[in-house]
Amino acid sequence: MDYQHYFTKRIADLKTEGRYRVFADLERRCGQFPVARNYRDGQIHEVVVWCSNDYLGMGQHPEVLAAAKEAVDRCGAGAGGTRNISGTNHYHVLLEQELAAWNAKESALLFTSGYVANQTTLSTLGATIPGLVVFSDELNHNSMIEGIRHGRSAKHVFRHNDPEHLEQLLSAYPRETPKLVAFESVYSMDGDIAPIAEICDVAEAHNAMTFLDEVHAAGMYGAEGSGVAERDGVRERITIIQATLAKAIGVVGGYIAGSDAMVDYVRSFGPGFIFSSSMPPMVAAAALASVKVLRRSPEIRQRHQERAATMKAKLAAQGIPVLPSVSHIVPVMVGNAALCKQASDLLLNKHGIYVQPINYPTVPVGTERLRITPTPLHTDEMMDHLVKSFVSVWDELELHKEHPKKVAAAE
Amino acid sequence: MDYQHYFTKRIADLKTEGRYRVFADLERRCGQFPVARNYRDGQIHEVVVWCSNDYLGMGQHPEVLAAAKEAVDRCGAGAGGTRNISGTNHYHVLLEQELAAWNAKESALLFTSGYVANQTTLSTLGATIPGLVVFSDELNHNSMIEGIRHGRSAKHVFRHNDPEHLEQLLSAYPRETPKLVAFESVYSMDGDIAPIAEICDVAEAHNAMTFLDEVHAAGMYGAEGSGVAERDGVRERITIIQATLAKAIGVVGGYIAGSDAMVDYVRSFGPGFIFSSSMPPMVAAAALASVKVLRRSPEIRQRHQERAATMKAKLAAQGIPVLPSVSHIVPVMVGNAALCKQASDLLLNKHGIYVQPINYPTVPVGTERLRITPTPLHTDEMMDHLVKSFVSVWDELELHKEHPKKVAAAE
Repeated sequence: MDYQHYFTKRIADLKTEGRYRVFADLERRCGQFPVARNYRDGQIHEVVVWCSNDYLGMGQHPEVLAAAKEAVDRCGAGAGGTRNISGTNHYHVLLEQELAAWNAKESALLFTSGYVANQTTLSTLGATIPGLVVFSDELNHNSMIEGIRHGRSAKHVFRHNDPEHLEQLLSAYPRETPKLVAFESVYSMDGDIAPIAEICDVAEAHNAMTFLDEVHAAGMYGAEGSGVAERDGVRERITIIQATLAKAIGVVGGYIAGSDAMVDYVRSFGPGFIFSSSMPPMVAAAALASVKVLRRSPEIRQRHQERAATMKAKLAAQGIPVLPSVSHIVPVMVGNAALCKQASDLLLNKHGIYVQPINYPTVPVGTERLRITPTPLHTDEMMDHLVKSFVSVWDELELHKEHPKKVAAAE
Repeated sequence: MDYQHYFTKRIADLKTEGRYRVFADLERRCGQFPVARNYRDGQIHEVVVWCSNDYLGMGQHPEVLAAAKEAVDRCGAGAGGTRNISGTNHYHVLLEQELAAWNAKESALLFTSGYVANQTTLSTLGATIPGLVVFSDELNHNSMIEGIRHGRSAKHVFRHNDPEHLEQLLSAYPRETPKLVAFESVYSMDGDIAPIAEICDVAEAHNAMTFLDEVHAAGMYGAEGSGVAERDGVRERITIIQATLAKAIGVVGGYIAGSDAMVDYVRSFGPGFIFSSSMPPMVAAAALASVKVLRRSPEIRQRHQERAATMKAKLAAQGIPVLPSVSHIVPVMVGNAALCKQASDLLLNKHGIYVQPINYPTVPVGTERLRITPTPLHTDEMMDHLVKSFVSVWDELELHKEHPKKVAAAE
């Protein structure tokens, strides 16, 4: 076999299919978010970032930056080992305590990323609880799917956000069979939200554990912001809450929260936890500061929701086909991979607007989209410029428009 | 099933077996490494860390810290997304260029950890190259084993560092069958080094790709320090070089380096890469600064090797059973999990020396050990205190001693 030829051919196929990803080379500018510099064709252009997962702009919050720098001065750059072998720094201990308290759980455990938190926790439970059967929402994130696959337990996929279908699948097993229901609160591509209480009703009736991914909700929902489970008052019904420190928290890393015994179990048996170097003190310190700010700052969450609603209304008023999501995520449908890429390129190159195209496999073929994530720091002027630019691009590429709508949520 | 009871029972079993891990709660003190503060029983004790994977102390190098803080001031705390969705910061681009150049390869790719670099690269190749057969050294790290398992390709395990056995296994397949030989340069528990050139001879004779994990070598071997493959002059024979930024580089994260096509392939198809938020700019900037320092600083590597040789000689001279490793790793054999833990506890509590016990499953039962990693910053006085303390603990616990040896390498 000619390996180079094989790799080259597969990459060429991606390009033919319009699925080859070109990363925008950005330089975030502290204090100017969402404005950033874009390195492109040997030049630097100023752009407004409209697709960041730094949903609340916490990545430039002064308390977060001060905490990161103080930790560098105190402890240096890295943690120096795995958690077990010299790599537990006092900031990890403090951050895990804070995350447990935030989620109203006994314990929490840090991972190097949300991906690793999902992959390790789900694969460890699947591989080590004899006879476990996992029930997984059909739109679960890749990290959950990979974790479940790697655990090699029995598995059933239930229809998206459908407690009745879940009930049917659970009913096929006796009560004694160990079971785990894995789902997300906010689904990041459509921006819809799971009926958590109803899923818990069904899970509890069948004595199943629940695993809730709050990656796109942590920091943003609930009085103290720990997620939709807090907003809905159902945290104590969830066995394992999982989330990330890389999105609304604005730093990097992942975590789970739950009972002392469950967390200690994953800590003791999860390979992706045991064998990874721990996050640098500066990362843990920054995340700790961010969580503390978010717990006491409901006004950031209010502003965030208002910005998203306003954005949806402004787009709908011009006939731009925005999904009426119930969350902070604003998906605009294009429905074709090549056109989606072209629209994104035009927005970037002609209008200084950076929205990455979302194509297969992240979303199904035919539902390609531009996914806008307005933050509390996006101004009305930026929004008006975005709408004007979208209309111009929609006209230029002759993309599908809808009948202009007035949406109440905007007021 | 009673899940809480199950988790609690499995944890209790670990405790009975003496395998329950208690993390030392440390506070690294910038500028004082390897001295750190240890939070224990409500008090803070000063300890000397002897088991850090910050092998060269780069985690407190002034240029590294300055780079981290400058990146915080310029770009804020987090990267804001996955690499594809707004999360590529210019520091990532610069660091990947530096890592490619350092390893004399066309391209490099960053991951959130060395674990994820191994797991993602090996599972992606295994899952996507039809008919691939993987040949894996029996002592490969858990992250490689998990990656190979998850790829679900055919697999053979060859005897540790044994090119003849590898040759036998490869011979069973025709030349056209796609093959990958996965191994490490420095094995971290025994400190032995692979015969890379001989393994390449065999792999090339059978048209197999090679995957070399330089996690415990990057920064420490070769004129510019990129690893043992550089030292041995065989880098161009390795298809994929993998390593970490969390050990000798002193920060966190992982990478692979290889041809443009191979790297682009893993970048385009590797789930653990595609779906993870990218490392914060401050992490990439710190790692970039560290690699630049290490490339131009052979004296750090010389001092490191001298310190390790001196440590081995000082221990051997007192009859402490140190393995005569050919690397910077100094394993001292205990051979019993409970005694190993007791020795470590005594060293910490009575002598202010922190060396984590290494027990099963990290090493085979009966080969439990204390694994010492002297850095360029460990002084003669610290070494003499360590040897005195080891002798005291060996006498107190009546551990096995060897006939005192004079080792030439010490001079």
